[in-house]
This record gives sequence, structure tokens and C-alpha cells, in this order.
Amino acid sequence: MAQVVTATPRLLLGPGPANVDPRVLQALATPVQGHLDPEFLATLDSIRAGLKRLFRTSSDATLAISGTGSSGMETCLVNVVEPGSKVLVGVGGYFGRRICQVAARLGAEVVEVAYEPGQPLDPGKMIDALKAHPDARVVAVVHAETSTGVLQPLEEIGEAVSGTEALFMVDCVTSLGGAPVEVDGWHIDLAYSCSQKCIGMVSGLAPVTFSAKALDVVRRRKSPPSSFYLGIDVLLDYWGEKRIYHHTACSTLYYGLQAALELIFAEGLEARWQRHREVGQLLQQRLQEMGCRLFAAEGYRLPMLTAVLPPEGVDAGAVRRALLEQFNIEVGAGLGELKDKLWRIGLMGYNARRAMVDTICGALAALM
Amino acid sequence: MAQVVTATPRLLLGPGPANVDPRVLQALATPVQGHLDPEFLATLDSIRAGLKRLFRTSSDATLAISGTGSSGMETCLVNVVEPGSKVLVGVGGYFGRRICQVAARLGAEVVEVAYEPGQPLDPGKMIDALKAHPDARVVAVVHAETSTGVLQPLEEIGEAVSGTEALFMVDCVTSLGGAPVEVDGWHIDLAYSCSQKCIGMVSGLAPVTFSAKALDVVRRRKSPPSSFYLGIDVLLDYWGEKRIYHHTACSTLYYGLQAALELIFAEGLEARWQRHREVGQLLQQRLQEMGCRLFAAEGYRLPMLTAVLPPEGVDAGAVRRALLEQFNIEVGAGLGELKDKLWRIGLMGYNARRAMVDTICGALAALM
Repeated sequence: MAQVVTATPRLLLGPGPANVDPRVLQALATPVQGHLDPEFLATLDSIRAGLKRLFRTSSDATLAISGTGSSGMETCLVNVVEPGSKVLVGVGGYFGRRICQVAARLGAEVVEVAYEPGQPLDPGKMIDALKAHPDARVVAVVHAETSTGVLQPLEEIGEAVSGTEALFMVDCVTSLGGAPVEVDGWHIDLAYSCSQKCIGMVSGLAPVTFSAKALDVVRRRKSPPSSFYLGIDVLLDYWGEKRIYHHTACSTLYYGLQAALELIFAEGLEARWQRHREVGQLLQQRLQEMGCRLFAAEGYRLPMLTAVLPPEGVDAGAVRRALLEQFNIEVGAGLGELKDKLWRIGLMGYNARRAMVDTICGALAALM
Repeated sequence: MAQVVTATPRLLLGPGPANVDPRVLQALATPVQGHLDPEFLATLDSIRAGLKRLFRTSSDATLAISGTGSSGMETCLVNVVEPGSKVLVGVGGYFGRRICQVAARLGAEVVEVAYEPGQPLDPGKMIDALKAHPDARVVAVVHAETSTGVLQPLEEIGEAVSGTEALFMVDCVTSLGGAPVEVDGWHIDLAYSCSQKCIGMVSGLAPVTFSAKALDVVRRRKSPPSSFYLGIDVLLDYWGEKRIYHHTACSTLYYGLQAALELIFAEGLEARWQRHREVGQLLQQRLQEMGCRLFAAEGYRLPMLTAVLPPEGVDAGAVRRALLEQFNIEVGAGLGELKDKLWRIGLMGYNARRAMVDTICGALAALM
């Protein structure tokens, strides 16, 4: 009779999940509580307060969806998109395209605002697109494009969108907890993230936040959001004062998130951003010294996720597989057409440490 | 600096979650693996094999959604319902109504086939409804209505639906793992469940299975399923041989599910059904001896979830709150209009033990 789950311990230096602090792992083995237990509901309140601090928003429509980051993206879209709604999407990598796919499935009229992978989106280009499509319901941008390693400046776009009827939606899946995200300050109406990257938890929960302007769009829909599971209307009846049963929230994951949030605020959000910035810069410097090229343009590089092209003649796919097989180190492959052309190296949350830089650079040096 | 998540240990004798075997809890603290790690992908293969045994199906379109049981319901519906699709739903409790809500949000034309709460649905009634609506795309029935404690016979309906174009969808959220569910034998095309009831895991995963007939309906849709997160087309590209990234599956939860499935098959599925049947019958006998009335009709009572009306003069809500506050025992309230009229007592998975019967009856006796 098997009673033990065996899993080779990996050092997770890809695009997430990252390894988690042992105190978070421990929190996952907390005894289970019911989804309507008053004590568990108080935990949800405390998580909401933590997520508001993390997103830098005063909106109470801030919660964690019972699903992965992808469900967060879909939650933001499904609640505000109706068939025929126009959605402008900045597309310079895999996750911009993913927004288009999700919106198209919901019946949106998608307008792609393309930009070069590795470069940021020129804010003026999106602002022009919005002028050309003044009936746009959503303007969507990826803050941290995990497929290319690009950090997108958001302030200028947010400022422009805020003066219109459109909603500003931002994908913060890779940035939240590891780099500044200012939901209120940057006029963001819809933002989503995941639990397994810079927040430092396992995957399975998707923090989301809706502005008052976004909730107003939900209220003025012709029919309710097409999803019940991701419907912000019914979710707020559970997360809010009514406490109406919606789904059986997994206390295990929420305990883990609570522990991760406590660790974040004990460290300090600014200190955490700085830690990610410092180890990211160190990694990028070391990789360049080893003859690698960074995929993202200088000045727009994510600290927590580096897309890197190996030196000429090195087989990126073979090295990646050897890292896993010989060193038990996971790094990410490229996504789509970039699959075996580059590595995506993540230093996120608990793994954003100097020792990880030495470890991955040492292993790469041994294999190149 | 807080480092410990505190949660009062509860005895979970409500409609789920139940307490889990310590070996399952332990599996949740297994170090994290990536969602594309070959070892983790092998774990998913083994989970799929286990779920096929559990559902008693040969369909490879069997997997666990990264969401709670509610996401399983939505997965089955969103993939086969198009705007205007006709969905016949047996409604004799909260979860039948929930199917109607989810289907209506997806734009379905919902036909409610009502039956009395506490009674099963007369198969002839649903078969007549299908004759009256030969263009129905889905015939949906709740196998174990968690709001009333009723076990629904399915064979006759499944037989009738199998001779038509319609798909037979069954909610097995409460029954799977604790009572016979014969997906292939009963001609079920779409079934979904949850992880936190008779399967014996925490919540957060939703086993689902699609028949070839159901997949054919998905293929013949005019446009892709409106959900990307729950789209069976893109999910099968990840769970199948292509291994295309879809979402960041949470290894923690899948390890837990793997451990729970191993415990199920080590015990034996038939032995597990019998254990649930025996303790359920014992509980129901003891409750009646204490002057309680069972809400579900005799002959149609769920073994794992008993809806029970307290003796005349006993305040169901007050006793339920005292159970939690004094005894740390959770039982369920009624849902909707039944809220403070009855208790829902669950003996599921790890908690389906004789000692639990003595514990809950002793506590109730002390409070009544």
C-alpha cells in the first residue's frame, strides 16, 4: 500500500512556480477548515486586506480567485466583456496573445496593438489606438511579459485611459510582489496575478482587483457575466458581508497565501522589490559576462524573470534538459516559436537570493 | 513577525470539506514541482488513470480541473452549451438550481424539471421531458443532492438519453468515491465531482469526464467554448500527449489527490462504498432513535450526507453554532430557505468511521 508521494526536489528557477519558504509549505499542512467557518472567513478578510496593500488599492473588490493566474485573467475579462465588446490588447509576447484568445472566446471584438517581442509597448501607440477606437471597453496590457522578460511602463497609458469610458486592465502575474504595482496610482481598473511567483506561494489562487469604474461596467451589463464560477457579482456576495455560499474555498491554499502575505509585509514591500531588483541585476550581469545575450531591451528588463539567449553554438534545449536531469534545476523554455531558443530564468519570492545566482550560473558554466 | 498560521482544529462533519487522512495532509507539504516537469506530468497520467477507475469509464477525456467542484459543473456546461442550447435540468434542491443558473449565464434555454425536495426525481418525468424537447442538448441530473440528502437513481434516465442526440450530465460532487458511480455503465456523457468529499482530499480540484459523444458535440460547436480556463479542447492539449502549456497546475493539490487516490484503491472501491453505507445507515438509525426526522425519503437516502430535522422545539441554528463553538464540530446548515431548519451531517472519506457517529450523536445529545 503506497502511502508516500515521491517527488524529486527541484530548484525552481523557471517562470514559476518557485520554491516556497518552508513556513509557507508548513502552512499548507494546516488542518482543514470549512469554507463558511467564522474563523476561516476572518482569514479571508485578512487576505483581502493583504492583497489591497499588495495591489496598492483601496478597492474592497479585491480577492483571490480559486484557480490559477489564468483564471484571474479570465475573471477580469468575463465580468466586463459582453459579446461584441471591443478590447484593445498590447501584444508583444505569449501572454498578450493569451489575453486576445480569452477575450475572443468571450465574443469580444479584439484589436491587437502589436509591438516587438523584447521591446516595451510604446504608450503613444496604445493611446493612439484608443483614440481610433473610442468605443473600446477594455485596454489591456501585460505589465511583466513572462515570455520575453519585458517590464512595461504603465503610468502614461493608465493616465490616458482614465479620462475615457474604457477600463484599464493589467496582467500583473509575474510582477506583483516583486516590482512596484500601483493599482490606484496608475488608474488600473482590472488587475490579476497568481500566487506562485513573487508572492511566494504555490499556484492555485489568483489575486484580482476591480475598481469602482469596473464594477459599474459589471452592473450595467445587459445580462450577468457568462461565468458563475468567476462571476464577480456572486463572488463578492461570498467575500463580502453577506457570506453567501458560492464555492468550497480551499482553506489549505488560503492558509498558504496568508502565510506568504505575512512574510511579505514582515520584510516590507519596498525591501522586497529592492531584493528582486538587486538579484535580478546581478544575474543579468553575470549571464552577459558568460557570453549570453539578454532578450529584453535594456532599461525594460524584468528583475524576477530573465529571458536569455545562450552563446552562439550552445543548444538551449539540451542545456535546459541537462539542468533538470543532472542538477535538478528547472529553468523555463521559450514559449511558442522561442521554445528551444532561449531560457527563462526566474528569481522569484523565496528564490530571489544571491545564492541562487551563483547556483544557476555555476550550473550553466558547467554545461556550456 | 508572524510565521505560524493558526487555525482551530475542527471535526468536519458537514457537507464537505471533510478532514483528510494525515497521509494526504502530509502529501500537501511535498516540495513543489513545475507544471511541465516530466515527473509531475507522469503524476498527472497516474491521476488520470485513477480517476478513470473511480468514474468507471474508459474515456481518456478524464482529468481534474484546477478549481473546486463548482468549476467542474461549469466545465461540463461551458464546453457543450452554446447560446440557445436547450438544457433540461432536474431541480429538487440547491444544486439542481445551481445547474440552471450556470447554464442560464451561458445563454442556454433552461427547462426545469421540478421534483419535490427530499424525494428523488421520477425517471419517467425526465424521460417525458426529453420526449417533449427532442432538441435538448443536455439532460442534467444531480446524483447526490447535497442540499436534501437524496440519492438519485440514474440508470433508467441514462438508458433513455443514450438513444437520443442529447448528452447525459450528472453531478457526482457528493457521491464519487463514496457510492457507486458507473459513468460508462449508466451512459453518462458528462460528469463532475470535487476533491474534498468522499475522495478524501482538500478542495481545489474538480474531477471531470467527457464521453466520446460529448467530445463530438464540442468539436461540432460553431465557435470554441467561451471559457479558455475551462475549455476541454485546450485542457486536453495539456493533459494529453501534446503537453502544451495551458495553466500552472498546482503540484501541491495534485500530490494530495494522488495520495487520496492511492488510499482509495488500497482500500478497494467496493469496500469504500460499503464503509460509507454502513456508517451512514448507523448514523441515520441513531438520529431517528434520538427523535430526529430524516429529510430524504426512505430508500433514497445518501449514506455520506444526511439531511436531518431536529426534534420539535429544538433550534437547529443554535445547536449548530454550539456544536462549532463548544465542540469544534462543524455540521452544515440548510441551504437557502432550509438554512436554520435542518442540519446536514456528512460522514465522508476519512470521516466515514463509526467513531464519528458516536461523536456527533453524543454532542447532539448533550445540546438538545
